[in-house]
Order: sequence, then C-alpha cells, then structure tokens
Amino acid sequence: MDIKDEWNDFFETSTEQEQQVMKLFLGSLKTKREKDQMTHIASLLNFKTTRINDHTLEMEMPNSPLLDNSIGILHGGLTATLLDTAMGTMASLVPGNKRGAVTVELKVDYLTPGVGELFICRAEVVHNGRQLVRMDGKVRNEHGTLIASASGTFFKLAE
Amino acid sequence: MDIKDEWNDFFETSTEQEQQVMKLFLGSLKTKREKDQMTHIASLLNFKTTRINDHTLEMEMPNSPLLDNSIGILHGGLTATLLDTAMGTMASLVPGNKRGAVTVELKVDYLTPGVGELFICRAEVVHNGRQLVRMDGKVRNEHGTLIASASGTFFKLAE
Amino acid sequence: MDIKDEWNDFFETSTEQEQQVMKLFLGSLKTKREKDQMTHIASLLNFKTTRINDHTLEMEMPNSPLLDNSIGILHGGLTATLLDTAMGTMASLVPGNKRGAVTVELKVDYLTPGVGELFICRAEVVHNGRQLVRMDGKVRNEHGTLIASASGTFFKLAE
Amino acid sequence: MDIKDEWNDFFETSTEQEQQVMKLFLGSLKTKREKDQMTHIASLLNFKTTRINDHTLEMEMPNSPLLDNSIGILHGGLTATLLDTAMGTMASLVPGNKRGAVTVELKVDYLTPGVGELFICRAEVVHNGRQLVRMDGKVRNEHGTLIASASGTFFKLAE
Repeated sequence: MDIKDEWNDFFETSTEQEQQVMKLFLGSLKTKREKDQMTHIASLLNFKTTRINDHTLEMEMPNSPLLDNSIGILHGGLTATLLDTAMGTMASLVPGNKRGAVTVELKVDYLTPGVGELFICRAEVVHNGRQLVRMDGKVRNEHGTLIASASGTFFKLAE
Repeated sequence: MDIKDEWNDFFETSTEQEQQVMKLFLGSLKTKREKDQMTHIASLLNFKTTRINDHTLEMEMPNSPLLDNSIGILHGGLTATLLDTAMGTMASLVPGNKRGAVTVELKVDYLTPGVGELFICRAEVVHNGRQLVRMDGKVRNEHGTLIASASGTFFKLAE
Repeated sequence: MDIKDEWNDFFETSTEQEQQVMKLFLGSLKTKREKDQMTHIASLLNFKTTRINDHTLEMEMPNSPLLDNSIGILHGGLTATLLDTAMGTMASLVPGNKRGAVTVELKVDYLTPGVGELFICRAEVVHNGRQLVRMDGKVRNEHGTLIASASGTFFKLAE
Repeated sequence: MDIKDEWNDFFETSTEQEQQVMKLFLGSLKTKREKDQMTHIASLLNFKTTRINDHTLEMEMPNSPLLDNSIGILHGGLTATLLDTAMGTMASLVPGNKRGAVTVELKVDYLTPGVGELFICRAEVVHNGRQLVRMDGKVRNEHGTLIASASGTFFKLAE
C-alpha cells in the first residue's frame, strides 16, 4: 500500500484533534515548499521572524498541540528550539559575519509554565567578539509573561 | 476544500523527499494514536526509551530530514529536546518521586556536528535531593561519537 | 617561633608589592573584626553593597593584586565570587524569604577582559518563585564596560 | 604609622582565630615569594596541582576559615574559583596549545553542602577543538562526597 492510500485510510478513522494536527503537517509542507531554505522544524513550528534593529530580532511561535509536553504545557525542548533558532539567526546576522554561526552552548532558565496563544522570543546580541557572538534570549507569551530566559554562545564560521 | 482533499491535491505534485516527510508525519500520528500519553513531539521525533538501571535511561532518536538545521546537520534545538525529554523522564522516575518533575534549567554544550543515523541520549541522575533532581545527559551517534553534553535541574512536583 | 616574630622577619625582606598585599590583609582583618557577620572572603575582596530597589542591589569590588589571574587581569573565579555573593545576597532579601538562600547553580559568561579600578556587580531578581529565586547578574568596570553576565538559581531555606 | 607598626598593634589585641588567619596570610605571602608565577588567590587558597594523565588534572584546596560563606560552609564563589583554576589550567595544557586559554563561560551545579577538611577538584578535557577546549570539573571532599559539578568552555590564545 502506498503512502497516499495509507493517508486516506487513516483519514477515515481520524478524530477531530488528529485532523487538526494533519492540517498543521500539511501547512508545514506547503510552507517548506515555498521557502526551500527553511528547515522542516521551523516550518512545522511556524516560526515567523521580525528584525527589530541591528542587534535584536523577534521570532514568534504560535501555540498548537505539537508544542505540548506530557503535562499539557509548552515543551521545554521546543522552548529551547525557539531560543536556539532565534539567537542563532541573530548571531549569524551580526556585522562582519559572512557565513553564519553555530551554537557552542545554550543555557535555558525555565521560569513560569508556558501557557498562551503565541510565544515570542526576543534575541539580542550581548557581545560581538572576533570569533564568538554572545547572545541573550527571552521567551514571553502574548500577555508579556516571561516564560524562559536564556544565554548562548555562537561561533562564527570562517569565510 | 476539506483537509482530506487538500492532502490529496498536495500528493499529486509531491516530490520524493516530501513523500518521505509525509511518511514520517503519518507514522507519528499512528504512534500517537496507539500511545495516547506520548507527546506529539516525542512521536514525531520517534523517541524510544530503554531503562538501563535505577538512575540511568537511554532515549534514541533516529535521524530524518525533520532533524536538519539550516546547514543540514542535527538542529541544536532538537538535540536539546532529546536531552530535556530523556533527562526529565529519568528525573520523574527517581525513587520517592510520585508526580513527575519539571525542568528548572538546562545547559547544553554542543561539541561536534550532529551527523549519523541514530542519536542516543544517556540520561543519568547526578543527585537526587529532597526537591531537586540534578541530571547529566550525553548525546552520541551510532558510532559512539560524543555530540553534546548537558546538565539539568528538575523540580519534583508535590504529591 | 611564633606568628608575630615570623611576620616581623618577613617584613624585613619584603618588597613594596608584598607590603601592598600585607596592607590589604590587615585591612581585611580589621573590617572582619568590626563586622563579625561578614565572611573573610568578602572582607578580603572589600565588597561594599548598595541596595538599589526591591529587587536589585549593587556590590562593588575594588581592583587589587589579589584579583589578578595568571595573565594579570581579573580572575574568573573572583568574578564568579562577586556574582555569587551579590546574587545570593539579593536572593536572600526577597519578600517572604526569612532564612536566606543557597546557590543551586551559577552560569557565568565572560565577555571582555576584566580591567579597571573598580568592578561593580548589579544583581537583579528575575523571578521570585515559591522555593526558587532566579537571578541575573552583570559585572561592569568603572567605565561601564560589561565584563561578565550571569544567571543563577537560589533555593530558599525553610523557616 | 607604617604597615609594620599597624600589624604589631593589631597582634596585641588579636584573638586565636585572627592569628590562625594571619598564619594563612603569611603562608600565602611566602608561597607567592617562592613561586612568583602563582597568583595571589591560588597561594591564598593553597592550591596544589597533580597531573593525572594527558587530559586530566586534580587540584586540591584545604579547608580554612577563609573559605567559609555566611552559613559556615564552603563559599560557592570559591568553589567556582577552584573549578575555574583547575579547568583553565588543564585547558591550557592540551596538546597543541602554546599560549594558554581564557574562560569563555563556566556553569557550576552546587549539589551538596561543602563540608570537610580537603576539597579536591578533578578537571577533565571533554573535547579539544581547534579554538575551544570544553572541560568538565567535579569537586569532592576527602571522603569522596560530590559537592559540585561543572562544565566550562575555554578559548585558546593564538600564538
């Protein structure tokens, strides 16, 4: 049985919640088809980036069943995924950095339970060194509640 | 147009790589249907857990296009997701802990590029305190190459 | 030979730099005698605290030969000592905390070489939880140059 | 009044505990005089180093009143000082590293109260990269009780 038939079989017995997740999966495939450079995980988590200024950007992640941990709130690993992506994206955009940056280390402090409709990560350059970019990141929900605070070190790739 | 028709339309024009990802999505939905307590992200990333002993477990994550970062290697956020899940699962299983544990903070050191077929996280209890469980985690590939090393603090939920 | 004679012998052959350090040692003993609750290390490093507001304090440490690392700049361990002391002091002063707080974990990012006459640490409460106080700390010199940035978790002692 | 007279005056009224601290101060000055490259803080804390193998060393710190925090146990900042010094010393000794290494970041987990006669820090190379050395450190007392666990990143100085 090919993948198309398997999908159609699955649909026949699907619950409403499963159909909601299938919509998310389909949306992510469509986004990824349009923006080929985007990663699968960024399209799956529906990341949207806004550049704020020279050393700051914001990345949004709308809440969805995909983000739940075992007690129904934002999964700490996905909080870290949002932080790492936002901080790494900003780190690769600092002046003088031509080829991007890779994560050396990431430290995340989980402060309050991740609840809400939209999670917004603000990533800011703390220090732009010769080889290392030192970053700061905060995750808040749409009400401004601080959910997580992070720091990270990124290594500039040589030209 | 309903979700089923949208899916079928998308199939008509899908590439081989897109079909591979659709298989992963379908597999994750089937797994989640069988194991209702599993999170979507754990079924999507295909986590499998093996208990090693009283204070250690291993969690595996097979490589797939979903794990790629923007330069085609294991995404640092998903490395963190594997680590947080494995360490948090082990932290919630320590003797005397009845209601699970939540992540207080997580520190991940990225040591070598995440390449390989299978990523294996070993999570170990460093100290089981009255309220806090202190954990250690290592991610290796199938050849034993150390990819990431982490520490984390977890708070025991009261009964 | 008793300690007094040993000291007097040492003085006879002491260099100017050694006499500078002896002055620091004597000053620290005098401070400690006046303020019995102060720790030896705080009096040795000449810590001075200013409360800024409900959730912030500043702690100063004047530069001296005692602070040098092997390449003649501020020792990273003493940067950490200033941060831990300032953050821990502020953590033990949060409303509702009656018996102080102990350090659970401390993360220090060293950003620029520690040079200057005076090092000023600003410690701020990020989140005051039921059991844990989450802190942020920054060390700057007298010109405002950011030398180190830190985060820490502190556990409130039960009454 | 010169520093010698000031010292002698202080002696006249000194308590037994003060004389114990003066002995430590004098010992540290004598050690520093013999080993000029040693830092003041290393001689004050009486650090002794043993090389274990290619990628491991141990550094000892005997307990003394100087190490006490405000509740009479090992000060977290001095635990960090021992860790940073041991890990940084080992990082600067890795093969191919000609000019030493500076601390990029340090994370310390405080696990149990620091009590005992002697604190022993074992510092181990986790990964020796082209520019960065990733280190691991553990502090135990003379009974082998694990007091603190740490990780750190060090940057190799260019030739």
